[in-house]
Amino acid sequence: MTDTARTHAWAYLSRVAEAPCAAVTDLVRRVGPVEAADRVRRGEVEPALAQRTEARREVDCAAADLELLRHRGGRLITPDDEEWPGLAFTCFSGADVRDKPEGRAPLALWVIGPLRLDEVAQRAAAIVGTRAATAYGEHVAGELSAGLAEREVTIVSGGAYGVDGAAHRAALATDGMTVAVLAGGVDVLYPAGHSALLHRIGRSGLLVSEYPPGVRPARHRFLTRNRLVAALSGATVVVEAGIRSGAASTAAWARGLGRVVCAVPGPVTSAASVGCHALLRAGAELVTRADEVLEVIGRAGELAGEPARPAAPLDGLGDNEIRVYEALPARRAITPDEIAVAAGLPAASVLGPLAMLEIAGLVERQDGGWRMARRPA
Amino acid sequence: MTDTARTHAWAYLSRVAEAPCAAVTDLVRRVGPVEAADRVRRGEVEPALAQRTEARREVDCAAADLELLRHRGGRLITPDDEEWPGLAFTCFSGADVRDKPEGRAPLALWVIGPLRLDEVAQRAAAIVGTRAATAYGEHVAGELSAGLAEREVTIVSGGAYGVDGAAHRAALATDGMTVAVLAGGVDVLYPAGHSALLHRIGRSGLLVSEYPPGVRPARHRFLTRNRLVAALSGATVVVEAGIRSGAASTAAWARGLGRVVCAVPGPVTSAASVGCHALLRAGAELVTRADEVLEVIGRAGELAGEPARPAAPLDGLGDNEIRVYEALPARRAITPDEIAVAAGLPAASVLGPLAMLEIAGLVERQDGGWRMARRPA
Repeated sequence: MTDTARTHAWAYLSRVAEAPCAAVTDLVRRVGPVEAADRVRRGEVEPALAQRTEARREVDCAAADLELLRHRGGRLITPDDEEWPGLAFTCFSGADVRDKPEGRAPLALWVIGPLRLDEVAQRAAAIVGTRAATAYGEHVAGELSAGLAEREVTIVSGGAYGVDGAAHRAALATDGMTVAVLAGGVDVLYPAGHSALLHRIGRSGLLVSEYPPGVRPARHRFLTRNRLVAALSGATVVVEAGIRSGAASTAAWARGLGRVVCAVPGPVTSAASVGCHALLRAGAELVTRADEVLEVIGRAGELAGEPARPAAPLDGLGDNEIRVYEALPARRAITPDEIAVAAGLPAASVLGPLAMLEIAGLVERQDGGWRMARRPA
Repeated sequence: MTDTARTHAWAYLSRVAEAPCAAVTDLVRRVGPVEAADRVRRGEVEPALAQRTEARREVDCAAADLELLRHRGGRLITPDDEEWPGLAFTCFSGADVRDKPEGRAPLALWVIGPLRLDEVAQRAAAIVGTRAATAYGEHVAGELSAGLAEREVTIVSGGAYGVDGAAHRAALATDGMTVAVLAGGVDVLYPAGHSALLHRIGRSGLLVSEYPPGVRPARHRFLTRNRLVAALSGATVVVEAGIRSGAASTAAWARGLGRVVCAVPGPVTSAASVGCHALLRAGAELVTRADEVLEVIGRAGELAGEPARPAAPLDGLGDNEIRVYEALPARRAITPDEIAVAAGLPAASVLGPLAMLEIAGLVERQDGGWRMARRPA
């Protein structure tokens, strides 16, 4: 058995049943890819698998598929390869889909691009959201993506219009790494309006699909594609999502796979943020900037800093100083006794605070009394 | 001892030490208000309390204060009254302030207005936020307030510009109940630009303060006032708050008192929402509409409904129907065998779904094949 025969078997199996197909994956695990391909080709498999492979088992374009990908600078990655990523499907906990075929690792992945998939998956964030993004959503997607890409986080998304596109573009614009997981073959650049963007991703990042070349994107493929976006990423960040949104399915996969689900809040008046708010109410992590995402997926010690706070003139003063200061009229001076009554403090307790406030430049003496400083320091 | 003497004693004690004053409250609990007032007046109290009451103990304007309030349609509410609300300070759990005087119930409350404070406190929500609210913040404050007021929830706030004002106004506009808790005497209508608004609240709702008449609002009084806003309300909703905001202190009080803290998300690009997002990251409940607040404070069974979902043409279809539908070209017909290959299904499994799709008006026959319906039902 040559490596070529083995690779051809993987390629054949990747097309013969609509991916993901648990029966094919199980058969390969038991007998290896070459024997599995032979049995499927001869129809010598259990009835359920025979039915799932009936339509395509006589179609063998493995050699052509591999050649086409090689020609475009691509390759087929399988569990045989060092590059095969750890995708956590074995610990999947989404009870409702665990026993469905989609609840499984992909059989093999077709890719185009220079990045190594296993390295990508070690430090990646998915940035996803609605195709009908608002200007706000595209802006925030771009900011988060650029901020993470600058910190060597790979941005994973689905190549779609709206949030996905803004995330990919911002990563490319900062010379960062980005991966588009497609719902059809990696040679089928969909949507057409993103073909130039996807070409750029294929040249400097990675295009990934579990579907063989030529397969058209279809609704069910978008949903199964979403699980790979989630599985390749340490966290999934939903930037904008309507009440019905594929981003919610990506988030559900992320949660099931033990990845962190993050969502960006937006105006409660915006239909494009309704899905994000629903996720946040269900326990997703609220994130507002790249730091906060990094904290979730980053190496130990990468903690989000505090947002900058403006300094206020009364910062650092004690309770009594603040009380005395607040008791002073703005435009005239009053005596310490009057200050004591106004502040509700004993007369003996106002002189110390007045001295401190004078040093701080906040109060000044006038006519034997005290007033607020006309121009505070 | 007459009721009048007792009321005068409460009024005297409410002014003699800056509220809240744990030492006065403790003394009243031990010996009653009349005896407590006598001892304070004579200076026969423990040194700490003597010091706190030194500046004002000879100032007795209880009779004038009570007369002034009566003249304005107000009253002094004390633990003697049925109207005294349960404020949960005894179960306060904010460790950092539990032992400070502010961590205590107010001694007495001065109010103007027709509402009964105990009834208000049984079904109230605080709607608070920055004075520097954006148009978005004022809009959302108004929507939440109106929605809650229509469901007989009393809106509690601080009477300030921005979020507070929008919340009060919307409650009044729907003929709802609203309460303003002031940081000075209930006869000192602050800020001046809200004096008409506060007058209206005093006529149909309630103005509340723990400070006696004539006391000017001051910085420390705003902070202690915030604890009463939180204590009177089943939930505190922060609509917009900058990184330094009194609303954060109200939220901290609410949490310490075992009330629910809610925050409204906003654009992550808006400085006026930074405080809300910080609260949400710290565990506050995200709310987007009145229903969701009602769910938190409402009577049993008042659960937020699901937001409306638009219907989609493929709703209710099974996996195979969707796969078959997606496999069809939009502009020409293909045979069931071709459909089987495109959908990755056995040929025998496409006829059933095609029949279902035809009934649903989504596909049509043409030239012995099938295509998507030209005008879906």
